[in-house]
Amino acid sequence: MPKISHKGIDMPASPIRKLTPFADKAKQQGKKVYHLNIGQPDIETPPGMLNAIKNIDFKVWAYTASEGTLSYRTKLTAYYNKLGYNITPNNIIVTAGGSEAIVITLLTCLNPGDEVIIPEPFYANYNGFACQADVVIKPILSYIENGFALPAISEFEKLITDKTKAICICNPNNPTGYLYSPEELDALKQLAIKYDLYIFSDEAYREFCYDGRTFKSPMHLDGLDENVVVLDTVSKRYSACGARLGCIITKNKSIISAALKFAQARLSPGLVEQIAGEAAVDTPDEYFEAVNKEYTHRRDILVQSLNKMGGVFCPNPGGAFYVVASFPIDNADKFCQWMLEEFDYNNQTVMMAPATGFYSTPGAGTNQVRMAYVLNSDDLEKAMACLEQGLLAYPGRKL
Amino acid sequence: MPKISHKGIDMPASPIRKLTPFADKAKQQGKKVYHLNIGQPDIETPPGMLNAIKNIDFKVWAYTASEGTLSYRTKLTAYYNKLGYNITPNNIIVTAGGSEAIVITLLTCLNPGDEVIIPEPFYANYNGFACQADVVIKPILSYIENGFALPAISEFEKLITDKTKAICICNPNNPTGYLYSPEELDALKQLAIKYDLYIFSDEAYREFCYDGRTFKSPMHLDGLDENVVVLDTVSKRYSACGARLGCIITKNKSIISAALKFAQARLSPGLVEQIAGEAAVDTPDEYFEAVNKEYTHRRDILVQSLNKMGGVFCPNPGGAFYVVASFPIDNADKFCQWMLEEFDYNNQTVMMAPATGFYSTPGAGTNQVRMAYVLNSDDLEKAMACLEQGLLAYPGRKL
Repeated sequence: MPKISHKGIDMPASPIRKLTPFADKAKQQGKKVYHLNIGQPDIETPPGMLNAIKNIDFKVWAYTASEGTLSYRTKLTAYYNKLGYNITPNNIIVTAGGSEAIVITLLTCLNPGDEVIIPEPFYANYNGFACQADVVIKPILSYIENGFALPAISEFEKLITDKTKAICICNPNNPTGYLYSPEELDALKQLAIKYDLYIFSDEAYREFCYDGRTFKSPMHLDGLDENVVVLDTVSKRYSACGARLGCIITKNKSIISAALKFAQARLSPGLVEQIAGEAAVDTPDEYFEAVNKEYTHRRDILVQSLNKMGGVFCPNPGGAFYVVASFPIDNADKFCQWMLEEFDYNNQTVMMAPATGFYSTPGAGTNQVRMAYVLNSDDLEKAMACLEQGLLAYPGRKL
Repeated sequence: MPKISHKGIDMPASPIRKLTPFADKAKQQGKKVYHLNIGQPDIETPPGMLNAIKNIDFKVWAYTASEGTLSYRTKLTAYYNKLGYNITPNNIIVTAGGSEAIVITLLTCLNPGDEVIIPEPFYANYNGFACQADVVIKPILSYIENGFALPAISEFEKLITDKTKAICICNPNNPTGYLYSPEELDALKQLAIKYDLYIFSDEAYREFCYDGRTFKSPMHLDGLDENVVVLDTVSKRYSACGARLGCIITKNKSIISAALKFAQARLSPGLVEQIAGEAAVDTPDEYFEAVNKEYTHRRDILVQSLNKMGGVFCPNPGGAFYVVASFPIDNADKFCQWMLEEFDYNNQTVMMAPATGFYSTPGAGTNQVRMAYVLNSDDLEKAMACLEQGLLAYPGRKL
């Protein structure tokens, strides 16, 4: 029997899905499970985007250009230039979700064995993409005490070797919700220029900034045209995770032309998605205003409820729709599994993602949990009541 | 300025697209260009598949399970079991086109530096996927003289090293149209068992077998459950190339569980595509009968016209919708470019893919050209008339 590859063995399983069998069992036992574990919003996709699908009028479901249709890239250009990115359609390669944007960027910019520095906790699937591309993630700890702000630049410098090719940030951050400040981005710029590094900017949650704060991208910074690659997706922006439609944006022509070869090998992004994505750009501002109001409200429920619980600390994040909180517990993996397997409160329980899966440093985040506020406020309140009881009843409680 | 990766430099550009700038220029000059270069069929997608898109009724365009929806995999199972594959939904992982199926399979089964033997000429994008996965393709020459039949098993054995992990066939073949016989598949089986190798079976063109011949897959062979991985796509079957919907099928549980980790990292295949793919399985037999009749007719036009031209030889392929023909020319790359740049016949010309791009062995296929019969028969006849004149006028003609 032939053997599977080392990568097949080493690929990490998804931390947000590894408790799924326990959740399934809890449901079989008749428990109501509140899912705060995964970033699948309940928010409706803009009707204009879905109507574009219903109104397709082609007869042959054909390939598009490998870099995406000119029509979609032109529309995207208008969207990004409204944000001040100052790009042309030639700066864009359309991808199968943000995931493909990340993989193609790693393959294009890093050699096997090269290193990318990423503040942790970080989006867990970066580990899988790094395994695929045979590159090394060097994590750099950020801390719950200051809300997971960017680590000091001196800490980055300690990690830089001749293998270091890039720094990757997710802004606003998944899993922490942290929104990087203009000062932090500027510090990263200095670092990138000093050491000749790429900055990969994962901006999946760009639209979700709260409390009147505005989003700032490395794309807004002068002098970084050759360094910055934006990794984007429509998944969260339009609550269209199942569209699998993302893109790479960069003013670095060498990256575009190499990335295009990877894009050509897989032939084409989806046609229907690009039609829908084009319509999505016309989503009225009111949609985003309503969604942001809703997310702010939910975040407030979550953060306030959590901080009222004894021994719990939850920073108030400036963006995205996640929080990472610390609990008075021995071990988040055990606790999250226990909540599904052993606990119920009025026949209800909560599924969360242990934060350990978002850290690479062994032992980091052991008492931390990530929650996505992707449920309506009623359900969120019920989930919080349930969690509070769970924390009180948990045998591994540790104040 | 940071440097792009070696892979970014080494990735081959797509041979079927590299003449596109010349075609664009020809069109700007007012020439009518017949496109025989790319496997984008003009055949209409089954209306049932397109209607499924128009009738979507979800409000949140959500992720699906990473392995694909159970509903789609169940429907696919029925399709494959009708062919005698004897599988369950757990033997399937749904992918973003056949392309992702190939990449995930290479990553799952081969270590960097491992080798996969592929009869050449072969689908050119295999080179790009091998570059991505850091694996080595060992080409084995097949010959136009016998219609590109499977090379002798003794030739395969000469190539086998301790790095050899797999044999990959495309059946019916792109680019040659060759349909492997049951005897050839059985010979591959003996080889796979003797040397403990995987057989990757790219079956994108399964539905297109002509002259009453039936398709046979390595999946039909006993004793190969651990060895065979089928790489599939709906692109050609339903003329739905822009759907980007494929799958991996294998009875090897280790492959499924490792491949699932790669699938989980990229989260989900497209939701709308899976809904459409499910409907597509209900496409009536009459659709395929009509399409096969049409393709057979076109193949006959192409093969008969080509073999009537002086110095041209074109085998009569048993499947797919491609032919590879040898021309009385010095160099196919030059000839195909010349046809676009320098030649016209009544203001018309033909775009073809030089077969050199489908060979790895230097110098192989220099006088061969691949043509896809994806145009209606009127246009095909005009294209052939045009090609005949081109061959007569070409300065590099060599009988």
